Amino acid sequence: MVGKLLAPEIRDMISQRDFVSLRSVFTDWPIADLAELLSDLEVEEQVIFFRVLPHTTAADTFEYLDVDTQTALLHAMGQEQVVAILNEMSPDDRTALLEELPASVVSQLLRLLTPAERAVAQSLLNYPEGSVGRLMTPDFIAVGEEWKVSEVLDFIRQHGHASETLNVIYVVDATGRLVNDVRISEFLLKPTDMLVSVLQGRHVEPLRVTVPQEDAVQIFRKYDRSVLPVVDSEAKLVGIVTADDILDVAEEESTEDIQKLGGMAALDDPYLDVTIAHLVKKRAIWLMVLFAGQTVTASIMGRYQREIDAAVVLALFVPLIISSGGNSGSQATTLIIRAMALGEVTLRDWWIVMRRELQAGFYLGAILAILGLLRICIWSTFSLAYGPHWFLLAITIAVSLLGVVVWGTLSGAMLPFLLKRLGLDPATASAPFVATLVDVTGLVIYFTVAILVLRGTLL
Amino acid sequence: MVGKLLAPEIRDMISQRDFVSLRSVFTDWPIADLAELLSDLEVEEQVIFFRVLPHTTAADTFEYLDVDTQTALLHAMGQEQVVAILNEMSPDDRTALLEELPASVVSQLLRLLTPAERAVAQSLLNYPEGSVGRLMTPDFIAVGEEWKVSEVLDFIRQHGHASETLNVIYVVDATGRLVNDVRISEFLLKPTDMLVSVLQGRHVEPLRVTVPQEDAVQIFRKYDRSVLPVVDSEAKLVGIVTADDILDVAEEESTEDIQKLGGMAALDDPYLDVTIAHLVKKRAIWLMVLFAGQTVTASIMGRYQREIDAAVVLALFVPLIISSGGNSGSQATTLIIRAMALGEVTLRDWWIVMRRELQAGFYLGAILAILGLLRICIWSTFSLAYGPHWFLLAITIAVSLLGVVVWGTLSGAMLPFLLKRLGLDPATASAPFVATLVDVTGLVIYFTVAILVLRGTLL
Repeated sequence: MVGKLLAPEIRDMISQRDFVSLRSVFTDWPIADLAELLSDLEVEEQVIFFRVLPHTTAADTFEYLDVDTQTALLHAMGQEQVVAILNEMSPDDRTALLEELPASVVSQLLRLLTPAERAVAQSLLNYPEGSVGRLMTPDFIAVGEEWKVSEVLDFIRQHGHASETLNVIYVVDATGRLVNDVRISEFLLKPTDMLVSVLQGRHVEPLRVTVPQEDAVQIFRKYDRSVLPVVDSEAKLVGIVTADDILDVAEEESTEDIQKLGGMAALDDPYLDVTIAHLVKKRAIWLMVLFAGQTVTASIMGRYQREIDAAVVLALFVPLIISSGGNSGSQATTLIIRAMALGEVTLRDWWIVMRRELQAGFYLGAILAILGLLRICIWSTFSLAYGPHWFLLAITIAVSLLGVVVWGTLSGAMLPFLLKRLGLDPATASAPFVATLVDVTGLVIYFTVAILVLRGTLL
Repeated sequence: MVGKLLAPEIRDMISQRDFVSLRSVFTDWPIADLAELLSDLEVEEQVIFFRVLPHTTAADTFEYLDVDTQTALLHAMGQEQVVAILNEMSPDDRTALLEELPASVVSQLLRLLTPAERAVAQSLLNYPEGSVGRLMTPDFIAVGEEWKVSEVLDFIRQHGHASETLNVIYVVDATGRLVNDVRISEFLLKPTDMLVSVLQGRHVEPLRVTVPQEDAVQIFRKYDRSVLPVVDSEAKLVGIVTADDILDVAEEESTEDIQKLGGMAALDDPYLDVTIAHLVKKRAIWLMVLFAGQTVTASIMGRYQREIDAAVVLALFVPLIISSGGNSGSQATTLIIRAMALGEVTLRDWWIVMRRELQAGFYLGAILAILGLLRICIWSTFSLAYGPHWFLLAITIAVSLLGVVVWGTLSGAMLPFLLKRLGLDPATASAPFVATLVDVTGLVIYFTVAILVLRGTLL
């Protein structure tokens, strides 16, 4: 936003090569704002801007840009500038960039890193995609059990700048295994010759490096921590994850689930950043699947063509009946998918959920059945639209509504369990998907009830 | 989980009054696990358990319990125990408890606090519900500009235990205004006689105390911080908010939005914790509203009864047509509501969004139109179900699909803007709500096209 206002002034400074003013104007800016401002400039202007910024500020600012802008910049920058930025970036943000690039570019970039940074980058890329290993940073402070408090404080003075957090200092044994998690206030409070092993720790549960990032979100929520240690399969401390990175993961996961629930594939980027072609692709597939499912409704209605011919009035209520089933199914599936994502409901709970939804579905169905009954009865006292057998029609509608809502609620609630049991993503049971499924079965319920109730009168 | 396994053993220890073992078993446990275990016990057992726990552990554990359990415990505990726990709780968690209780209970509990804690609690409760003020804690470390580094370190040694974070030390001027935000490593690194005013800060943007918590989530995401300072209208530092609390807010907001998108009111508690009555209440209201909307479809179809009578085949495609509009509307509304919640799309973007969705809707509609056309044409080469005028019918279906999908996409995308412009929650434009709206208009589109195309042949 602010970038759009300032862009002309910055362009002026850049075109006039007035680098002194440029530098002095922006040294005081928060990095995130600097990055926002940069994204409104052309890539050539960005390159110049980066050359003007101090060394570490340049890398920090680069970390805040989205991957597309980062990639464009890497192409446009001179090799020296690329080397400086890549080596200075924090390892977790660098991993996030590298995992989006083609393998050939990655190996090219890795060669630009110093041997130490290259080793770090490669080890992080070895962890499975979407795991905590790809999210963590190895920039933490670990000290030995046999260290003195004074040694720890000296160590922090020397290495503290590199660490993502100083709230917590990790204590490891000789083999690198995590043994304790001590708040920094402990070190400041205790006599300088005290041994680390005596300090009171907090026995925090570490994250396993291979755990999916979604699970890490739930662990963070449970323990209310700002940072958690990450250990490998041998319980060795390999990194830390901070709550601000977890917040990004949580928001991304929610966005994906919401988009899937809306009956589409999740977008790869923010809405305004994707092309129309991307937007169409992500939506067309599911729209076509749902369309194919819905063509079944036409066939089913075709089977009841004789009944519709005999009583056209039946056709009038088709949208009302099937959408009531779809709406109740949409509610149930949404509730269960979100509860599963939050870890509130697991596969083992299917029986409890089924009992609850059966009850809820019955009450909801009864409410709509009464409304439907009243609607036709009241209407029929003023109008002849529904013919002499309006009361039988009202009964048909009411019974169908009850059946369709119970069935919709039940299938909406159970489908996520079924999908999860089959190893699929429960969010595939989107609201439109459940609605389509319930539409097809809802028609069968409706016409079956109609034939039973109206035989000998309307039919 | 683990609580269910251990509960019998704990019950034994409690009934045998073996408090020494009880205490020794659980002192090493992480607080969050202790709280989880406690929630599986009866309230009387919980009270005994709390009496056994060390003073501060008791308060910490209490903070992790949900509000219902907390309330039950407050009722069951002796006054002395309540006083100890309430005074020891961290102010932000205490606010979260107090805001859920009836006013009479709150004033009773406030009287149990020490004058200092009472002042803190009352000032926090004065901020509007859902604002950053209700989320923050006043437990931070603030130092003066004219202090020396050594004074700051002494101050941290004395008061550091109470602060929620030590990563960052806040610098304030004589009137309490926030002037800087300095990482603790700076203090450890610099000579002890250096003045605080000389230290390099990070010029972080503070949160305003009255800002809604949802907005704070987006600010945290932008700045990637683990903690942000909170200032009042006079720029005075009044508290801090940590990223772990923001994570909870983000997940709650997403849950609310997801449930609303599913066509229901948001639940007050996790799915398995609410009663069936609550579940029915939160769903029935919207189901009834949508039902009322859908009864309009019956009236509209009634207006076209003559056409359906003449060509029953038209009725067969009603579910297919209207659900295609509903599905595309559901996709569009879901995308826009989420993009709004993330701050990616604001009210001013309505024009860009409309242009994009008009294009996307056209392509999506064209795809479904071609599918629909092919479906009827292929079917008609094998069957006589659609009569001699099957090609005109196919044209009707294809044109209607295009119209309905474009209209569904456009209304699904624009409705959230309209609601937000009117000051309402955009998430009210749930998928089922948009689908219902599009069903009604979709029928009009379909029958209008049918009359135009089929006049003189089928109609």
